[in-house]
Amino acid sequence: MEWNPYFQQCPTRQVLDHIANKWTVLVLGLLADGPMRFNEIRRSVEGLSQKVLSQRLKALERDGLVHRKAFATVPVTVEYSLTPLGRTLVEGVDILRQWAEANMEQILAAREVYDRNAAASPG
Amino acid sequence: MEWNPYFQQCPTRQVLDHIANKWTVLVLGLLADGPMRFNEIRRSVEGLSQKVLSQRLKALERDGLVHRKAFATVPVTVEYSLTPLGRTLVEGVDILRQWAEANMEQILAAREVYDRNAAASPG
Repeated sequence: MEWNPYFQQCPTRQVLDHIANKWTVLVLGLLADGPMRFNEIRRSVEGLSQKVLSQRLKALERDGLVHRKAFATVPVTVEYSLTPLGRTLVEGVDILRQWAEANMEQILAAREVYDRNAAASPG
Repeated sequence: MEWNPYFQQCPTRQVLDHIANKWTVLVLGLLADGPMRFNEIRRSVEGLSQKVLSQRLKALERDGLVHRKAFATVPVTVEYSLTPLGRTLVEGVDILRQWAEANMEQILAAREVYDRNAAASPG
């Protein structure tokens, strides 16, 4: 079978939705350095809510990118780590994050030009 | 200044939101092969609405990744192409798309295991 995310019903479309996602990029970027607990991850990504992180991790676990391990402590400790499959995606998401950091000045300059032109010619 | 998308107010967070997005990945993947008209793009990405494509292209144009050129035809023809900055992102988004295509079987297998375990131990 030929996979093709340009088709709406191809399962690669949904996978692309899971991986081409800012939270996924940021969370995988953290887990690349080693296992982390849920609350550690949440504190490391400012603005990431408990609900959204929980949904993201569940989707990544179901897709086989992230491994969830519960420890029988009181209260239960849950640790997340990358699977071998998840590790193969780290390079890709790192490129996006690093691209944003490396090109931020140029993007801000482009926005200034765009907004100036938009103000000069309304409509 | 140090850019860091792990901070909510850093402008790289918003840029990451623009580029780590399935529509951006698919649209830049098309424009990598040359300029395209609005409707050509829309027809090439199944399930992409006119409204969402319009918003995506505007954000990409404002960020300096995509160039919009209008031709004085009747009706007006509008063509989109990658800027040199946009071209530097093609490799990154292509990795994500190709990763999804290359690993789809493994992801489907992971989901089967996950769903089986979830059914076996409810709650």
